[in-house]
Amino acid sequence: MFKLFFSPGSCALASHIALEHVGADYEAVRVDFSRAEQRSPAYLRHNPKGRVPALVAPEGVLTETPAILLYVAQSFPGAGLAPLASPFELARLNAFNSYLCSTVHVAHAHGVRGARWADDAAAIVAMKAKVATNMAECFALIEREFLLGPWVFGERYTVSDMYLFTVAGWLERDGVDPTQFPKVSAHRQRMADDPVVQRALRAETTSL
Amino acid sequence: MFKLFFSPGSCALASHIALEHVGADYEAVRVDFSRAEQRSPAYLRHNPKGRVPALVAPEGVLTETPAILLYVAQSFPGAGLAPLASPFELARLNAFNSYLCSTVHVAHAHGVRGARWADDAAAIVAMKAKVATNMAECFALIEREFLLGPWVFGERYTVSDMYLFTVAGWLERDGVDPTQFPKVSAHRQRMADDPVVQRALRAETTSL
Repeated sequence: MFKLFFSPGSCALASHIALEHVGADYEAVRVDFSRAEQRSPAYLRHNPKGRVPALVAPEGVLTETPAILLYVAQSFPGAGLAPLASPFELARLNAFNSYLCSTVHVAHAHGVRGARWADDAAAIVAMKAKVATNMAECFALIEREFLLGPWVFGERYTVSDMYLFTVAGWLERDGVDPTQFPKVSAHRQRMADDPVVQRALRAETTSL
Repeated sequence: MFKLFFSPGSCALASHIALEHVGADYEAVRVDFSRAEQRSPAYLRHNPKGRVPALVAPEGVLTETPAILLYVAQSFPGAGLAPLASPFELARLNAFNSYLCSTVHVAHAHGVRGARWADDAAAIVAMKAKVATNMAECFALIEREFLLGPWVFGERYTVSDMYLFTVAGWLERDGVDPTQFPKVSAHRQRMADDPVVQRALRAETTSL
């Protein structure tokens, strides 16, 4: 039995889709950001970083999307969600996920969480003003270099597809027109058509 | 035969130490940031992201520190640099590395690369002003929650120790007094005493 702490619209969606895909016995628990529940003592005991996702596994709590995604892929090897037999291919998957968390997610975060990196109100406005440019630059690179199609790594569907779908879902609110990235757009549609993805999204929406 | 592209003082040091530790047959090649070599067409062919590290492996090029570190640990399993037999323990390691790349490295980067996230000069100054606070907050968490001691994961030395040593090496230039974190400081000293680490550092220094 797993417990996934998530907030709707956050990167926790990727882990949510992964758990749903492998048919894990799990409960998804919403952390209410509007009431700053991620900073509550109860939640900080699970994740002292005060962020989502956090996955309560039988052995303990895990955080950070790239780590959770690989953990799910390794714990349910029959689902084939990562190239576990090849250290090189697995490193390519981890590199893609690492790029999403350390560059793309960070580019996005400057539009909504600028106060993390500056106290000055004008600076926060200036950060927000650059989000569309930075996100478009990231997705141009993804479109040109990383997304082989139909899935990120070609014919094989992996946890990276779940993560890309999650982050690409932020484009509109970041002021980026996704139609300029046809491969990313087709990938999003392919994911959105998956009943597994629909179940995870519905569970997050109905939690509100 | 591997080739590691690095820049002295960058996070590539972690991968450099890992290659040196396992006794890999590798060449370390400096990318001269002062001449913007990371943006040169020749380098962008290796890594279209224009960053270091990039590791040219027999099967192709790998990027992103967490991915390279796990790849080295998996490619040289005899060195025991990661708990490869336990998906959960491995996920803990990946979560720590992911925190370093997506939160701690990013906190540091606002002091030197603020132009990534805002065009306004005053905003870049405002970001720089918050670096010490953010880095101190990250390291307070590492000191209190993550660094078990003597190594990050207790008695077992892993690639996370190399990565922590690398990022902790930025504290002084980020305006943070490391002596307020006794476990982190002891860890740094333990790493600095390691001849493997000394060889990697020396190779980076003499490349200048």
